[in-house]
Amino acid sequence: MKYEKNYTMLFDFYEITMGNGYFKTGLRERICYFDVFFRSVPDGGGFAIAAGLEQVVNYIQNLHFDEEDIAYLRSKGLFDEEFLDYLRTFRFTGDIWAVPEGTPVFPREPIMTVRAPAIEAQFIETYLLLTLNHQSLIATKASRIVRAAQGRAISEFGSRRAQGVDGAIAGARSAYIAGCAGTACAMADELYQVPATGTMAHSWVQMFEDEFAAFDAYCGLYPNAATLLVDTYNVLKSGVPNAIKAFKKHGITKCAIRIDSGDLTYLSKKARKMLDDAGLTECKIVASNALDEYIIRDLLTQGACIDLFGVGERLITSKSEPVFGGVYKLAAIEDDAGHIIPKIKISENAGKVTTPHFKKVYRLFGKDTNKAFADLITVYDETIDETVPLEIFDPDAIWKRETICDFVAEELLVPIFHNGALVYDLPDIETIRAHCAAELERQWEEVKRFENPHNYYVDLSQKLWDTKAELLRQIKA
Amino acid sequence: MKYEKNYTMLFDFYEITMGNGYFKTGLRERICYFDVFFRSVPDGGGFAIAAGLEQVVNYIQNLHFDEEDIAYLRSKGLFDEEFLDYLRTFRFTGDIWAVPEGTPVFPREPIMTVRAPAIEAQFIETYLLLTLNHQSLIATKASRIVRAAQGRAISEFGSRRAQGVDGAIAGARSAYIAGCAGTACAMADELYQVPATGTMAHSWVQMFEDEFAAFDAYCGLYPNAATLLVDTYNVLKSGVPNAIKAFKKHGITKCAIRIDSGDLTYLSKKARKMLDDAGLTECKIVASNALDEYIIRDLLTQGACIDLFGVGERLITSKSEPVFGGVYKLAAIEDDAGHIIPKIKISENAGKVTTPHFKKVYRLFGKDTNKAFADLITVYDETIDETVPLEIFDPDAIWKRETICDFVAEELLVPIFHNGALVYDLPDIETIRAHCAAELERQWEEVKRFENPHNYYVDLSQKLWDTKAELLRQIKA
Repeated sequence: MKYEKNYTMLFDFYEITMGNGYFKTGLRERICYFDVFFRSVPDGGGFAIAAGLEQVVNYIQNLHFDEEDIAYLRSKGLFDEEFLDYLRTFRFTGDIWAVPEGTPVFPREPIMTVRAPAIEAQFIETYLLLTLNHQSLIATKASRIVRAAQGRAISEFGSRRAQGVDGAIAGARSAYIAGCAGTACAMADELYQVPATGTMAHSWVQMFEDEFAAFDAYCGLYPNAATLLVDTYNVLKSGVPNAIKAFKKHGITKCAIRIDSGDLTYLSKKARKMLDDAGLTECKIVASNALDEYIIRDLLTQGACIDLFGVGERLITSKSEPVFGGVYKLAAIEDDAGHIIPKIKISENAGKVTTPHFKKVYRLFGKDTNKAFADLITVYDETIDETVPLEIFDPDAIWKRETICDFVAEELLVPIFHNGALVYDLPDIETIRAHCAAELERQWEEVKRFENPHNYYVDLSQKLWDTKAELLRQIKA
Repeated sequence: MKYEKNYTMLFDFYEITMGNGYFKTGLRERICYFDVFFRSVPDGGGFAIAAGLEQVVNYIQNLHFDEEDIAYLRSKGLFDEEFLDYLRTFRFTGDIWAVPEGTPVFPREPIMTVRAPAIEAQFIETYLLLTLNHQSLIATKASRIVRAAQGRAISEFGSRRAQGVDGAIAGARSAYIAGCAGTACAMADELYQVPATGTMAHSWVQMFEDEFAAFDAYCGLYPNAATLLVDTYNVLKSGVPNAIKAFKKHGITKCAIRIDSGDLTYLSKKARKMLDDAGLTECKIVASNALDEYIIRDLLTQGACIDLFGVGERLITSKSEPVFGGVYKLAAIEDDAGHIIPKIKISENAGKVTTPHFKKVYRLFGKDTNKAFADLITVYDETIDETVPLEIFDPDAIWKRETICDFVAEELLVPIFHNGALVYDLPDIETIRAHCAAELERQWEEVKRFENPHNYYVDLSQKLWDTKAELLRQIKA
């Protein structure tokens, strides 16, 4: 892929000091299990949308140090030649399971699990987190904005306010996965096949003698894609009348105007009437200017006549909550005989206690509704028999128990790498986007509310709960 | 440079539809002046720190379409072969002026000015904004955090929560420019010479039989860089005692512990006493966990015994305000005779009215204090005579006038490109960082307050004010 890079050096330095430590202390081949999970959903939402897996796959496949990297590491004065020589042939040889991109996911369940020798598993931490955190953040935000628009299209155009190049292009990709109609960013289109469109800036209007001349020229050039920006001087007194005049002159009926400032409800209603009165009933109205899910909801509540929203900085940075707090935690190791030993991390902050062990995650759907009602995390060797009733319980309040029947259990984590080899067919972006839409359909509306969503249960199996409780007892003893 | 890429395709699609429009309508060679400026400082601060120029220079020097790009553009069905052929030799041939990186800058003054043929000037909009916005955002936030720590070191380690790869590495660069002591990100070190350091994660501690074994092994490996993470199990009951035992066993006195959870004030005070009682008075205490300038200020007010702060997500995303609103606005064009015609953009939102014309920016310093007291924007052909009194006035309240003497006027914008050629010696990162520190020294403390900073004046010269007023009159007429 044209812009593909080797991101091997994108690690936190402690990963290599620890890696050298594992190398020197004989722990290098110790098999470890790490989980990626998050603790809370941004914006108080009910779920997140997983994204970024494709870039993780590319990273893993590219993972290697070149001589320039080795020279840099040597210059730090911390590593000997034996270790640096080992790095020359360093590759990822382990296993990875992950939730497919576009899947709704919930706090405290693994969205990716890595099984690999300690030094490899530790080394990939930063890139995995960075990529899954960033793309899941933007996909989650974009999903909220798309839902707020109630079927109207959302166009992502935040590149200029994105946090760096990757913020723009990987952000546009995530936004598209979550249901945006397209992007303004050409590089996201060329690189990730996110449909890019664009029309004019205020500067186009300023470059001509007057506003009509600017519109006239544009309609002549792009009669099939004429979206005219009407707020350079005055929307209602000048912009809309000049746009109507230009559309009429060129006989264009499938067209649009864009309003980028002022009271969007008021202006869109007035503009709609002016366009309709002129017979331009097919002319769409595009609105932009610091929009997000809350403002879009308000605009529609107030009856704004807007057909398409352009959303910039508040989407591409997830401005209201710009951090997705995914973490990468050791869950188990294997002893020399290959037995899996669960590991826990406790903490002064109760919410930071991890769920130990190599695990599986099942999503439970009602057979009649095809809607999800809970996720169930089990130990890796458990299976769920859909033909018999299943008792599930709240892991934080274990007296809350329920026995369920007529359900379908689907595994969320699928194999991505096995022994370092890719075993997953990466879907194209349209497939990912369709998967996202389909899986959202399988969530109840109550879970999709913006505020105070229904608390979706992520339960532990009895065996897993017992394992966690026992480890906590051991450490406290 | 190893990771350098061609970011030509990182444009908003309207830039190429407009570019084609200028090409077809004979406006292609029309000389335009665009300013980059911002309207407000994030977090209610008094100023921003300009950053990102080096990456803009790299971008401009690399600007070109390759055949893959041309093929992609052809596939959009909007451009004819004449235009696509023109793009094959497209380069930047204009002039750029900019504020050097690390300089404190204020709202509504140009921090970069581009003079170029319309098609070129328009095309580079997105990358310029993206880069200057992102890096200035992080530099501005980092500067606040560094100042909050009152001389204690700040280490940036937010890569895993950054918004994409560039968010991490260019973010680490910006943080360093603004005064951070270093980063955890190895790639920022290799690529931008930001010093990277790192020690251990909780997983290191979990990998060993017990906490002491983990600390013992680490001290053996890195006796000169032993920072032990003490909160995997219990900071005071287990972490600090085991750390002391390990330091003693290895005879290490220059060392550190890191506390990553819990009540940092309480724990750091208790830990300090335990370390001092054990004779480890040189052992530093590092604190981390969702820190920012406000929490650091509170910790120090409460007497926390912390020598170094590790700051992650709230710095690398500027979490409290993750958008820097720099814009790129047409300020003037040249007519066929080469006369500069000022241009203005008005708007329904009064704050969005631009300041027209090709301009210069002077920073005025008191000769006695060497402190800045105002910036003055002038028309390009004005000069300031420091030997005679100068009358300045508030452009929003023109009756507020002041006559100043004994001042030094320094031009902020320096030439970067002339006729497409680089005419600026890019400083190395240590020089930029030193420039930032020196220029901050030249700002009054009142301007540097976190809350309600003194409103630093950015004034317009009489000639520029008159030009703006006249254009507003013309448009309203």
